[in-house]
Amino acid sequence: MTDTPAPTSGSPFDDIRALLSAMPGPDEAAVAAVRARDAELTKPAGSLGRLEWLAEWLGAWQAKPKPSVARPLVAVFAGAHGVTARGVSAFPDVVNRQMLENFAAGGAAINQICAAYGIGFKVFDLALDIPTKDFSAEPAMSEKDAVATMAFGMEAIAGGTDLLGIGEMGIGNTTSAAAIYSALYGGEPARWVGRGSGVDDEGLARKVRVIEEALALHGEALSDPLEVLRRLGGREICAMAGAILAARAERVPVVIDGYVASAAAAVLHALDPRALDHCVAGHLSAEGAHREALERMGKTPLLALNMRLGEGSGAAMAIGVIKAACACHTDMATFEQASVSRGEG
Amino acid sequence: MTDTPAPTSGSPFDDIRALLSAMPGPDEAAVAAVRARDAELTKPAGSLGRLEWLAEWLGAWQAKPKPSVARPLVAVFAGAHGVTARGVSAFPDVVNRQMLENFAAGGAAINQICAAYGIGFKVFDLALDIPTKDFSAEPAMSEKDAVATMAFGMEAIAGGTDLLGIGEMGIGNTTSAAAIYSALYGGEPARWVGRGSGVDDEGLARKVRVIEEALALHGEALSDPLEVLRRLGGREICAMAGAILAARAERVPVVIDGYVASAAAAVLHALDPRALDHCVAGHLSAEGAHREALERMGKTPLLALNMRLGEGSGAAMAIGVIKAACACHTDMATFEQASVSRGEG
Repeated sequence: MTDTPAPTSGSPFDDIRALLSAMPGPDEAAVAAVRARDAELTKPAGSLGRLEWLAEWLGAWQAKPKPSVARPLVAVFAGAHGVTARGVSAFPDVVNRQMLENFAAGGAAINQICAAYGIGFKVFDLALDIPTKDFSAEPAMSEKDAVATMAFGMEAIAGGTDLLGIGEMGIGNTTSAAAIYSALYGGEPARWVGRGSGVDDEGLARKVRVIEEALALHGEALSDPLEVLRRLGGREICAMAGAILAARAERVPVVIDGYVASAAAAVLHALDPRALDHCVAGHLSAEGAHREALERMGKTPLLALNMRLGEGSGAAMAIGVIKAACACHTDMATFEQASVSRGEG
Repeated sequence: MTDTPAPTSGSPFDDIRALLSAMPGPDEAAVAAVRARDAELTKPAGSLGRLEWLAEWLGAWQAKPKPSVARPLVAVFAGAHGVTARGVSAFPDVVNRQMLENFAAGGAAINQICAAYGIGFKVFDLALDIPTKDFSAEPAMSEKDAVATMAFGMEAIAGGTDLLGIGEMGIGNTTSAAAIYSALYGGEPARWVGRGSGVDDEGLARKVRVIEEALALHGEALSDPLEVLRRLGGREICAMAGAILAARAERVPVVIDGYVASAAAAVLHALDPRALDHCVAGHLSAEGAHREALERMGKTPLLALNMRLGEGSGAAMAIGVIKAACACHTDMATFEQASVSRGEG
């Protein structure tokens, strides 16, 4: 026993910061192996474009010289938002629970997309019956609640997966996401706000007003990205941030869905610009200023299909592409195997 | 018996022009049915973006109120080009045959993509051992040869399919495609030419020179798009044009692959701007001025993955997307079925 002072009790966020500081990097040996094999495959060099890059990216973060997409999974996180009391959504809160039942019954868009591509699908109910607080009046969550929810999100990969898509369900959450972008990236809130599931002009104006009030209320506290997350975020956004972090630690590449999922990613990127190196942006959402948000994170979306549904639908579409990219890399014949002559290129 | 004069013997192209004049239009009742169902599905209106449009497009051209992608097929047409004698490709002619063997053995990229998405795959060998003539010195094909090859291409749908992707294999054929774009759309040939499978700067300059010579040689004859096709095209390009036409007549929607496949489409579009209404551009190729060619045809590519492989690979990737779009439309629950509340939107 020594008489050094007991450690001062830290912030609940300390564990999150510790995880960020311990993130593994890309496996360069795996990248080299993927590149070497790619050069032998029966196609002109570079002709598969982004598919070739995806194979490298999978290898880098799975740390596998032959990457796999054998157990892809889409995890959808659902949360309820106190800010809906401000009239920011075209749909009532009850739709959260109804859509969870629709997911369970296999009736939602995400069910069909996952079935089409052979993607596993899990839904995480994040205390749907206990909405977060209205963030225009007070912090949406306590630090403890936010951290516990991030930890819960880390469970997304517990069952095992080699490619994780993250998505969400949460009436009101495009307002939360727009608030996060406004806090992290500045500029007029109106620039970040979209119509979500379809509000009219008045609803849109309400969304802007709510965010303006929130930014004024929370003020300087928003200089810390984790404070942005817990004050303006929803539980599903916390959980997605946790899932992204856990996936990095466990070497699972991540496909980020659209506008709301990218807000979770943006918080991590603001904490450490390397935090999303294991992530691809699945698609460009038609919602709000998603393109600009992705540019801030240095991400080029894989798809641009004018979708804005959420529920992981864009991530699942992108996993369809990545699956084919991986199949090309792993299963194509080499020039030698197929006795195909090489070009000069 | 009357004494009216016997009909003057027409051009071999007359049958093609007759097919063009008899093209069916979209089935508006099917479109209305698809739209009506879409409005009932458990998602905000419009939130599936281009996926919704794809379901309408399938319905319109299949003439089915509930469209299907149950038997998608990628047809790859392979032809040999006399113009390769001019040193326009990075790969030798022998690769045509070798790649056909690679297709048959399941070792090419297209095999892996078709397997990933459950797409049928057929290869059509268009007299690979008898290259077309060098089009910079004489017409690549006779009228009869061109028409017979178009007719052969029409066989693509003979086995039955509800969604046809068309692609090609042919060393030298990006030079042929660039010549077709130059003839149809004008401007400096250099603007349309790309590096194909990977020629160096000298190879690129040779491609441009070959096309300049060809345009000078064939001159005014190129004012007829079908003359453009037979004088500058290859057999695989003729066959793809035939496949597109036959699919229209039989109400099979078509996914066009990249730079070379789009040249076949461009010929039909020049003959009749409605000729491609049953087609989507599968992807934006990284080759040459594909973007500009698609713009001329009024097509927005579904994917942009920087691919430039040919062999139907971009069309197959797009069919993966269309399959999921169709599954969403046909298999999602309605608001009533799932007891989900509607929004105001």
